[in-house]
Amino acid sequence: MADSPPAASLRGDALRVLHAALAAADPEEAVKRHLGLLPGGRLEAGGRIWELGRFRRVLAVGAGKATAPMARALEEILGERLDGGTIVVKDGHGLPLRRIAVREAAHPVPDGRGVQGTGEILDTLAACGAEDLVVALISGGASALLTAPVEGIGLEEKQETTRLLLACGATIHEMNAVRKHLSRAKGGGLARAAHPARVLTLVLSDVVGDDLDVIGSGPTVPDASRYADAVAILQRHGLWDRIPEAVRRHLAAGAAGDRPETPKPGDPLFAGSATVIVGSCLQALTAAAREAEAAGYRSLILSSKIEGEAREVARAFAAIGRECRDSGHPLAPPACILAGGETTVTLQGAGRGGRNQEMALAGAIALEGVPGVLFLCAGTDGTDGPTDAAGAVADGETAGRGRRLGLEPRDFLKRNDAYTFFDRLGDLIRTGPTRTNVMDVYLLLVGAGGA
Amino acid sequence: MADSPPAASLRGDALRVLHAALAAADPEEAVKRHLGLLPGGRLEAGGRIWELGRFRRVLAVGAGKATAPMARALEEILGERLDGGTIVVKDGHGLPLRRIAVREAAHPVPDGRGVQGTGEILDTLAACGAEDLVVALISGGASALLTAPVEGIGLEEKQETTRLLLACGATIHEMNAVRKHLSRAKGGGLARAAHPARVLTLVLSDVVGDDLDVIGSGPTVPDASRYADAVAILQRHGLWDRIPEAVRRHLAAGAAGDRPETPKPGDPLFAGSATVIVGSCLQALTAAAREAEAAGYRSLILSSKIEGEAREVARAFAAIGRECRDSGHPLAPPACILAGGETTVTLQGAGRGGRNQEMALAGAIALEGVPGVLFLCAGTDGTDGPTDAAGAVADGETAGRGRRLGLEPRDFLKRNDAYTFFDRLGDLIRTGPTRTNVMDVYLLLVGAGGA
Repeated sequence: MADSPPAASLRGDALRVLHAALAAADPEEAVKRHLGLLPGGRLEAGGRIWELGRFRRVLAVGAGKATAPMARALEEILGERLDGGTIVVKDGHGLPLRRIAVREAAHPVPDGRGVQGTGEILDTLAACGAEDLVVALISGGASALLTAPVEGIGLEEKQETTRLLLACGATIHEMNAVRKHLSRAKGGGLARAAHPARVLTLVLSDVVGDDLDVIGSGPTVPDASRYADAVAILQRHGLWDRIPEAVRRHLAAGAAGDRPETPKPGDPLFAGSATVIVGSCLQALTAAAREAEAAGYRSLILSSKIEGEAREVARAFAAIGRECRDSGHPLAPPACILAGGETTVTLQGAGRGGRNQEMALAGAIALEGVPGVLFLCAGTDGTDGPTDAAGAVADGETAGRGRRLGLEPRDFLKRNDAYTFFDRLGDLIRTGPTRTNVMDVYLLLVGAGGA
Repeated sequence: MADSPPAASLRGDALRVLHAALAAADPEEAVKRHLGLLPGGRLEAGGRIWELGRFRRVLAVGAGKATAPMARALEEILGERLDGGTIVVKDGHGLPLRRIAVREAAHPVPDGRGVQGTGEILDTLAACGAEDLVVALISGGASALLTAPVEGIGLEEKQETTRLLLACGATIHEMNAVRKHLSRAKGGGLARAAHPARVLTLVLSDVVGDDLDVIGSGPTVPDASRYADAVAILQRHGLWDRIPEAVRRHLAAGAAGDRPETPKPGDPLFAGSATVIVGSCLQALTAAAREAEAAGYRSLILSSKIEGEAREVARAFAAIGRECRDSGHPLAPPACILAGGETTVTLQGAGRGGRNQEMALAGAIALEGVPGVLFLCAGTDGTDGPTDAAGAVADGETAGRGRRLGLEPRDFLKRNDAYTFFDRLGDLIRTGPTRTNVMDVYLLLVGAGGA
């Protein structure tokens, strides 16, 4: 720990800490941090060694919004040890690659190009043998980009089923249990297609909790759900008689044992394969905490799994920041308290903003008049809601500064207009699109002596 | 740190930790912990020595729901050094005392008995001289119990003003700025009445942030607000023409400089006086953390200032509990993470419950299926909402246990019916009335290995 940073530098330090988080979440850096080619053609990944010399071919497949830069890093690391492959990325998210074919497709609503790209991947995997190594690169958005309806079901019928589930408030786990049983790619589908090749999956996580079977609908990992679960979920929501006939027939046949199940945990299919989370919110927070320590702050990571209504969660953070300043709990200032996750906003008005800007505004209100505490909220993808900002920064003077400009912070919060408020104050954070996504990052900085 | 406690013991440990918090908040214990009579008649309070031999008399005054046991402790400590005094407590909250007169009055709506008891206190203080020491005992509820309208204003007119402010959503700070300028007791009024006697104030805090001028409306501490603020607040809320004529005249005269202001910070009036917070949520949490450490847990106090919508704040705590279990942040299990404060509940249904039970229920939903994490929420006064419970306890099995009894936790949360849910499960916490109040306590216990 260095000398106490003065309160005036809190903002600069917070931005520096945020950028350390973003750098750690960069897909290319994330892959390079977890993968290394050792002498003798040995690939180290996640603490495990893969003897490349023992494989006939090394192929890359994958999908997701951040998968192109992940693939570029893989090409750079493996060089000519990489034989080829195909990835599907969101429109505009491609990069020129040397050995891996890049297909662009629609997101978040799948289209025929996604079906075609996924078909190429399945063909590549079908041609694999026990002597091949497949590196799967999965990032956020893969669910929509890896689109391969089971035989007899059309893309539209699958989409209609998803739409019905969404409309009745099904959870992400319920959605996935159904979708995985309608797809040849999701729920371990790619792993089955690749068998008996060995599969090394590299994952950039964009979901709370980093559940591997949720990220991109888990194309290369086991699926604990069963056909019967999918049927039960649709019945519970009163959708069984409303879903397309072909979907109903397929699921009923599966539940009756007439279709092969998705591969389950413990399936020998997964023996010799491995999954490495190369980037996640927690990893970004860990890098950010290191940067904060280097800048002279004590650091504490609270959680990378924050969920809840943005403005209410912000009040809890403000309470922790005030306690830190007043009593030195949960740690003594100068302190950097870090968290991450994804909050939600229940819209009340027609203003502009995003969940991070809304959190920062609620934080500004809760921290009004408190010196020496700064609160920063930002989306790691650089885009918070339908705005050009990643988030915003607030402290004890923010509310008063707003009022002096004729902006009453409570009114702006009431109509979900945090963007306008912070834009006028010059307190928006603009990073531009970062081409990654490990959810959102929240920073509380508490200066040593106060203002 | 002892051996890791098994997950099965989490509940017992949590209750033990809670009871350590309650014991520390006990008004009698709280006073005894901060006050000591040293040889030679020297009274030590808050790290400061009062030479009792130099005072002609030592008198006790005060008000609040927990003030009778505070006074009993003072009588016990001072013995015959105490000459007498008067306190005003809520109906049914009195105790037989030897030297201090106990008056009971109505709460939360003041009545004539409160006015009479406060008059006795003001008379006692008026008779004090520079050679007297006054010990003021202030606890939650003192605002309503210390009732002394300024001359020319009746109790009803003061109440009507308060009622109007409440109805238009005024903050507690706005309420106080007005009330303090209509009272001879609030906003330093008792300190002024006692002058030139020295005043030692002992406070049991029931407000978030422990602001001395907010607790019991700060009868013995400086008041930063002015008559002009009171007028501006009433005008801002459109109430200036609606408040009783006598109130308007009094405040206008004060704003014009024709009435003495409440004593301000830095007023020589307060020289030689002192205030000691003998009990607070943070002190209760500190004692609870010590108990947790003794039971083998690492401990971390997050904040004693938690506010926000109960069900959303609960999700933030659940996220921290899950992170602790998964990654050892913010501290490694076995861990006890403590917090306190006072959340709010926006009523949606007509069920039974309180803010703590509602938090526990939301926590049960957010923690469903997570092994080895327990969440406890309880009001330190032993009464959570209009129920006979102090709070409830939840863990990863709570939601499932409810469902097996036909109780869908989300439905119970939706209609604010946490009491019924936890009562059926046997997971309510019942302490009975504790005769103290240092807000609410939240505990997250995370077992070492999980379940």
